[in-house]
Amino acid sequence: MRTVYWEDGVVKLIDQRRLPAVLEIVAYDDHKKIAGAIKDMVVRGAPAIGATAGFGLALAAFASKSTTKKDLLSDLQAASEELVSARPTAVNPGWVLTRILTRVAKSEMLDLMETRKLVLQEAQFIADEDVAINLEMAKHGSSLITDGDVIIHHCNTGSLATVDWGTALGAIRMAHEQGKKIHVLVDETRPRLQGSKLTAWELEQYGISYEIITDNMAGHFLRSGIANKVYYGADRVAANGDVANKIGTYMLSLAAKDNHVPVYPVVPTSTIDLTLRDGDQIPLEERDPREVLDLYFQGERVAPIEAKARNIAFDITPHRLITAIVTERGIIHPPFEENLAAVMRNE
Amino acid sequence: MRTVYWEDGVVKLIDQRRLPAVLEIVAYDDHKKIAGAIKDMVVRGAPAIGATAGFGLALAAFASKSTTKKDLLSDLQAASEELVSARPTAVNPGWVLTRILTRVAKSEMLDLMETRKLVLQEAQFIADEDVAINLEMAKHGSSLITDGDVIIHHCNTGSLATVDWGTALGAIRMAHEQGKKIHVLVDETRPRLQGSKLTAWELEQYGISYEIITDNMAGHFLRSGIANKVYYGADRVAANGDVANKIGTYMLSLAAKDNHVPVYPVVPTSTIDLTLRDGDQIPLEERDPREVLDLYFQGERVAPIEAKARNIAFDITPHRLITAIVTERGIIHPPFEENLAAVMRNE
Repeated sequence: MRTVYWEDGVVKLIDQRRLPAVLEIVAYDDHKKIAGAIKDMVVRGAPAIGATAGFGLALAAFASKSTTKKDLLSDLQAASEELVSARPTAVNPGWVLTRILTRVAKSEMLDLMETRKLVLQEAQFIADEDVAINLEMAKHGSSLITDGDVIIHHCNTGSLATVDWGTALGAIRMAHEQGKKIHVLVDETRPRLQGSKLTAWELEQYGISYEIITDNMAGHFLRSGIANKVYYGADRVAANGDVANKIGTYMLSLAAKDNHVPVYPVVPTSTIDLTLRDGDQIPLEERDPREVLDLYFQGERVAPIEAKARNIAFDITPHRLITAIVTERGIIHPPFEENLAAVMRNE
Repeated sequence: MRTVYWEDGVVKLIDQRRLPAVLEIVAYDDHKKIAGAIKDMVVRGAPAIGATAGFGLALAAFASKSTTKKDLLSDLQAASEELVSARPTAVNPGWVLTRILTRVAKSEMLDLMETRKLVLQEAQFIADEDVAINLEMAKHGSSLITDGDVIIHHCNTGSLATVDWGTALGAIRMAHEQGKKIHVLVDETRPRLQGSKLTAWELEQYGISYEIITDNMAGHFLRSGIANKVYYGADRVAANGDVANKIGTYMLSLAAKDNHVPVYPVVPTSTIDLTLRDGDQIPLEERDPREVLDLYFQGERVAPIEAKARNIAFDITPHRLITAIVTERGIIHPPFEENLAAVMRNE
């Protein structure tokens, strides 16, 4: 089952907020509702958000009442901006939508219904391509995993984060399918706990050995020599190899580096943005403080009712803490500035 | 109000598990129940646990049916072992109980009831001394805080962690009372969330500006230059300055060091254990995995019902990450091995 797909004129998503308790598929018939679903994290993970945004644009195309191609393109442009602004840190929606818009603008098709279908066809192609890309990433990423590895994994990067198969968790799943004996320490990933909810749920489905830990325990498992690899995905990679990913990635990478444990972000090349010189140019989303405060432990609300909180959703991991970046085109080693540019040239 | 006190033959504790929702005082008439309260974290924080264990020993003294001093001492020894094993990582109960036992063994008193009263008198003296020591720590610790500081604080170290006033939070509170404008970023401190529950509650009482953050956000606030100091307590300090404290302290200290932000553990000298060469000799408690798993976010259980977890309660922060150790006898700078030994000699 795919995380996002088009069926009978609507976009269907697994509502990831309901997992692990309930597996619910939600249908959307309007691109504004898709933008809402992206913002509310019904769908999570950069590649899945990208594919969802693509299908959202197809909804906008079919809904547009324009009678000229110019007006249709203008409607698509407006819809595209709404879809991108739903999660400003992820680069994938922007990349997907620009690709579809460029393809449509260049097409010499004049029939408006055919043009609308072209938007959907491109969105579908991008979703299928995501699955193929993920399999390539999983192949490269699994080649770095050996028998007996204990891997710390941050956030959710499995099938649910993509259209299917996943990024970092795809590599782990493939290593498991290759018969390697591995164990995963799953960062629960506060504040939204995607590790505890989604990654643990996926590992349970695949029959991979795992234990959940709080994010702040990773340092202990690295320092004591128990964990020997760190895997995660990323929302954006800058030209110098700095990585924007879920909050906590920086501290995890720092603890790995302090203990000589290799750190592997697994990312599709669509996540690499050479126009950004370094991580400090990546905008970091701040979300509703209730995500930090609205927590119940053993039946009781944790924070005082009047408490205030901050909720930074992402952080920047400097490239000096990263061992190698795994992509569908291979494993990229330092110096990242040079090697990322080379990989991106060989399209 | 004190966190722990003796009244009419029973030991009274603020049940810290009920905070911040309810302020409840619980009475204990048996040292085994006191050991249970320590284990179940009714009382938290090394100095508070130490004072509680002292009063617990007084309960054992009055409960003992021994008719000779030798037998009474043997009962006290057995009770002492039960009290110490309730939280094996904290050094304070062992220190407090050894001090009382030594005093009683040395006393030439022959009357058994007088001997029992001596146990209580010593326990009371240790509790009062804790308050005096905390005020000294707060004076030294607050001298390092200046107007405009944004301080990251880990776990709970305020009045609730001690008999009164606290360690790290005592220093912060005194700086506030001196009129310094400060802001505290409160690590929520997973898994038991003592920051969110207890530290936020105390700061709210004192009127000190604060915001709660998830532990994994500290790196972002340090890297972005917002936070400029790190304060925490400690459960044990080894001879070389390595510190055992609540899980997450190592990663926090590492992120501070990576951004040239000073790190100040605030500890009574009773926490310093020169018999331990370094942090690796400190036993680290592993607790019930349900503390990691039994979490509800926005109304729903987070982890899959079949999920497994690890729950390491403490970690070791190597001394190279620590700027200075604040004690009631002054601020100790590196080289810690030399300077800790010197301070401990000048009793």
